[in-house]
Amino acid sequence: MIRFGVIGAGRIGKVHSKTIALNSKAKLSYIADAMPAAAEALAAQYGAKVASVDEIMKAKDVDAVLIGSPTGFHAEQIQAASNNGKSIMCEKPVSLSVELIEQTLKVVEKNKSTLMIGFNRRFDPNFGELEQRIRKGVIGDVELVTVISRDPNPPPADYVKGSGGLFRDMMIHDLDMARFLMGEEFVVVHALGSALVDKAIGVAGDVDTAAVQMQTASGRIAVITNSRRATYGYDQRMEVHGSKGMLSARNVHNTTVEVHNAEGTKADPIQNFFLERYGAAYAHELNTFIAAVESGDRNPKPSGFDGLQAQKLADAATVSWQTGKPVKVA
Amino acid sequence: MIRFGVIGAGRIGKVHSKTIALNSKAKLSYIADAMPAAAEALAAQYGAKVASVDEIMKAKDVDAVLIGSPTGFHAEQIQAASNNGKSIMCEKPVSLSVELIEQTLKVVEKNKSTLMIGFNRRFDPNFGELEQRIRKGVIGDVELVTVISRDPNPPPADYVKGSGGLFRDMMIHDLDMARFLMGEEFVVVHALGSALVDKAIGVAGDVDTAAVQMQTASGRIAVITNSRRATYGYDQRMEVHGSKGMLSARNVHNTTVEVHNAEGTKADPIQNFFLERYGAAYAHELNTFIAAVESGDRNPKPSGFDGLQAQKLADAATVSWQTGKPVKVA
Amino acid sequence: MIRFGVIGAGRIGKVHSKTIALNSKAKLSYIADAMPAAAEALAAQYGAKVASVDEIMKAKDVDAVLIGSPTGFHAEQIQAASNNGKSIMCEKPVSLSVELIEQTLKVVEKNKSTLMIGFNRRFDPNFGELEQRIRKGVIGDVELVTVISRDPNPPPADYVKGSGGLFRDMMIHDLDMARFLMGEEFVVVHALGSALVDKAIGVAGDVDTAAVQMQTASGRIAVITNSRRATYGYDQRMEVHGSKGMLSARNVHNTTVEVHNAEGTKADPIQNFFLERYGAAYAHELNTFIAAVESGDRNPKPSGFDGLQAQKLADAATVSWQTGKPVKVA
Amino acid sequence: MIRFGVIGAGRIGKVHSKTIALNSKAKLSYIADAMPAAAEALAAQYGAKVASVDEIMKAKDVDAVLIGSPTGFHAEQIQAASNNGKSIMCEKPVSLSVELIEQTLKVVEKNKSTLMIGFNRRFDPNFGELEQRIRKGVIGDVELVTVISRDPNPPPADYVKGSGGLFRDMMIHDLDMARFLMGEEFVVVHALGSALVDKAIGVAGDVDTAAVQMQTASGRIAVITNSRRATYGYDQRMEVHGSKGMLSARNVHNTTVEVHNAEGTKADPIQNFFLERYGAAYAHELNTFIAAVESGDRNPKPSGFDGLQAQKLADAATVSWQTGKPVKVA
Repeated sequence: MIRFGVIGAGRIGKVHSKTIALNSKAKLSYIADAMPAAAEALAAQYGAKVASVDEIMKAKDVDAVLIGSPTGFHAEQIQAASNNGKSIMCEKPVSLSVELIEQTLKVVEKNKSTLMIGFNRRFDPNFGELEQRIRKGVIGDVELVTVISRDPNPPPADYVKGSGGLFRDMMIHDLDMARFLMGEEFVVVHALGSALVDKAIGVAGDVDTAAVQMQTASGRIAVITNSRRATYGYDQRMEVHGSKGMLSARNVHNTTVEVHNAEGTKADPIQNFFLERYGAAYAHELNTFIAAVESGDRNPKPSGFDGLQAQKLADAATVSWQTGKPVKVA
Repeated sequence: MIRFGVIGAGRIGKVHSKTIALNSKAKLSYIADAMPAAAEALAAQYGAKVASVDEIMKAKDVDAVLIGSPTGFHAEQIQAASNNGKSIMCEKPVSLSVELIEQTLKVVEKNKSTLMIGFNRRFDPNFGELEQRIRKGVIGDVELVTVISRDPNPPPADYVKGSGGLFRDMMIHDLDMARFLMGEEFVVVHALGSALVDKAIGVAGDVDTAAVQMQTASGRIAVITNSRRATYGYDQRMEVHGSKGMLSARNVHNTTVEVHNAEGTKADPIQNFFLERYGAAYAHELNTFIAAVESGDRNPKPSGFDGLQAQKLADAATVSWQTGKPVKVA
Repeated sequence: MIRFGVIGAGRIGKVHSKTIALNSKAKLSYIADAMPAAAEALAAQYGAKVASVDEIMKAKDVDAVLIGSPTGFHAEQIQAASNNGKSIMCEKPVSLSVELIEQTLKVVEKNKSTLMIGFNRRFDPNFGELEQRIRKGVIGDVELVTVISRDPNPPPADYVKGSGGLFRDMMIHDLDMARFLMGEEFVVVHALGSALVDKAIGVAGDVDTAAVQMQTASGRIAVITNSRRATYGYDQRMEVHGSKGMLSARNVHNTTVEVHNAEGTKADPIQNFFLERYGAAYAHELNTFIAAVESGDRNPKPSGFDGLQAQKLADAATVSWQTGKPVKVA
Repeated sequence: MIRFGVIGAGRIGKVHSKTIALNSKAKLSYIADAMPAAAEALAAQYGAKVASVDEIMKAKDVDAVLIGSPTGFHAEQIQAASNNGKSIMCEKPVSLSVELIEQTLKVVEKNKSTLMIGFNRRFDPNFGELEQRIRKGVIGDVELVTVISRDPNPPPADYVKGSGGLFRDMMIHDLDMARFLMGEEFVVVHALGSALVDKAIGVAGDVDTAAVQMQTASGRIAVITNSRRATYGYDQRMEVHGSKGMLSARNVHNTTVEVHNAEGTKADPIQNFFLERYGAAYAHELNTFIAAVESGDRNPKPSGFDGLQAQKLADAATVSWQTGKPVKVA
């Protein structure tokens, strides 16, 4: 039984709290949030206690800290948890600063802490199965990875100002998936972007429609397209072309019901909400983290290094979009 | 080069005339029709001559007669063509009278004529491929055959009066397909039917919605459902369940275009017209007939015997519907 | 909070116990089973107590009895629970004796007890949605219902001897679904069956492959096909043809991953196990029962009457198969 | 009746000759080829005469010249045909030299000749329908165009040397489709490429795997991926994301047959050969050209300007790949 302290009672904190509460190997012990009312409401729902971040870090009856606070606090909380001997599961991104990530990973390394980063999509049953088949050699050598990821609705322009921008806030998931599926690091990134969905997003200095293409040292290519708005739902697809075939994973429809009439054959809309679409992924993610803590595996995937690499790619994409030039990645 | 005389310049005669005209191994020599204007128009379109039925039967420059006249004339025209040494391709059904079919097949047998019956669906590339895979053993032993066949729109009630009824006029195609796919004769037939689409069809003594289930001596089962109206198009599907798997053939959509929006994912309507849906089948059917004539194969499939068996099943289904009891088939 | 006593710690008792344990509005209080070890193991798993059937019936801290015992006990246990003022959820079938069901429903009626029968498939999100769209008029008048239901593997021949036979043991689910989708009672039933999968099932006096067609007083038709073995998984499909269109619900694949290579495009197998396929249905079924108990609705669907009608149809199908004749249903 | 002179009796010349021969509004009068035997064989097949290029240009009984010669001859032959008052249908690309295309278009303009360029994919029924729905506003404003195009097998490395490279030889079709679907010119192109399929292609100075992303002045984005080898067939897909929805067109499978067994559900391979996949497109392309000639429309689409723009994009992509930098297009 792993006893968790959850930091952050916002949207993602609620997701993880519920996932922990439903897991028979996990106990939701403490919840911290800068807004006490939020922490109290969530704690009451699952029979947990409210505590400060500092109290969680030092609590003897906490084995693992789940960090779901605003991005700006992730790095220092990872370090504090590591210095206090806790295992750590931290939401993406580790930090908007690559330098701060590198410094944080050194602390984790020194303390030999277990750290896992919350790229939940790797744990989606569809995408996870796709990746396993690649590794089993079902399609031979990977040559071309295509990631399509589109949100149902754009966030308020106010939100994007503090988000680090689409490449760091939204596409970072897809950059991680591209690395995950490719199995080789990317060395060059080229990005295009526009504010086509909401001009206010453009005024705020960000884009809502974007494409990135990247290449590895051996010449393999990945292509990602993003939009902040898809009228047809939460579009999440992957496709990997290899020397012996292609693997694809389609969207998930609400039901299997189809209507057939003179207009055509109409399937249900695709699942529209990230919690519904990735519900199974969050549960599987937590199981993977718990298994790592129990077995003493200090580097469950996605690791701190995975978090670092995704951030480097997101930074490179941002600079490429800003300068109009390809950016090399170390 | 096989020289054809076509009897009948109606809907199906036009289909066959065009198919013959486009076939490099066939020549459309003569067309006969009780309505001279119809024969003349069709002959003019393809550079053929108009002739009487009798003239076609006796013409030295006719190798094969294609019979697309009203059902009531089929048997006597087959016999006449056979007695004049012609090869014969005849539209289904051979006759509404099983006795007359049997008598006709004796003439054909005596003359050693080549005769093929126009069950065009066997030549559809999808259904043909499905049947070939059954015979290759892809699904092991056939256990359960499902045939779904629905027309876009009901015929006028006037038409059904002279048609022999749904089981003989429409379902006969599906009865033939069930035999074709099953590969074993049926020994018992039970039918249900209603006039749900158009009450006038019921008043005319026929049904527009029907189901038949049949069993072979070894216990295998086939299920057919028919409707005279499908708002979503010309519904033509087959499914065969066997000891090692299942084979299915879906409908054909107009294009592969799909629209995705908040209402769902909408594929195109399915092909709605029999000429479009079975265009390739008619061409392949003619090629099969020509190959049989050229090679001297007197029993190309679907044979006269196939026409006889389908008619027996259609009669049995009709009686079963009328009496509410299962009917045995010899 | 509804406090449950569960009778039966076998396969289906385990399913319901888990579903109750995971439901925040339900409490799993007692478990009874003729084999004490089975009851104890299940009780220990969910923190419930072991009790005799009689103790559960009389316990003051039991609001509802969930009956998952062997079929032969269902009727008397429903009556006992009803006479003791409990709400009742009972697995299908109520009894293999129509007479005993009728007598039991009279007791339930007299006591004004809440009774629901466990036809879980009505609660499947796909089939439930399909039925709701029929009721909303999406396809106009229902004309033709097709239910396809095939189990992955046949049961041992020993099992079928005491099961009442395929029509009462397996097809009863599909007979209920046909009633559910049609919305009108069937008045005539015709069945065909064979032992094609396992000859020992035939020797035991049962079939493993079957087809039923039924008609309502207004002429509407339903067709059901069953097999006790489908190499491709647990095949569960429905299709409803109406005057304004068709509704269908397809199988559920394990994942959305597809492999594309020279052999073709291969989708995952379909879900193969009833617990996986109908997991959501069991949860939704329990919620419906709890809502009925809480609101005092004595006739949640599927009701005792639904259980009675399905049994009548299963009996009729059995007799039809045995006699080779259609059987009328009152 | 439009009388055609066909220049080139190679692979594409054969395609067009057959299409002309089957078209009731066209007559295949002359065929020219540098290899007399090839011209003679093709002419004999369709009852045409062999002639020199010069004879075709000057023949009074030729209305239209169809140019299917090697790329290096296209520009001069267009000019000659234009100067002789012929209508012209020319295979893509017009020329590998943008300058020469511009000079050629001036000649065509001066002579007021009808010229159409053979980007056959615009005439595919699926892609054509997709484009028409965009123009009807089905998905609102176009924001993101995705073109996936992969050949079944790579050409010999020898071939690529004289081909102008993948971007000019293969991707030019996709660059044209991206323009066709987008409806706005692209202003910047970034390309990535590698020789992953066949190292000899890399040694020959070309790539076999490539990605291009392009942006319009208003910020819209198109993404193209190419591979010279797809084990699963001739992969030809389009997807257009707009403000009100998405339109997609899938691949075409050989048949609709599916096999279901323990391995999953397997659909047929997709059509593997360009003649089969685009057979209908070639026929529709010719009809469009004939209609333009008959009506005196001098600028049927795809026009000479479309040929020019596609070549500019192909050049830009080639330079981008060579330099690793985005390239602006005028």
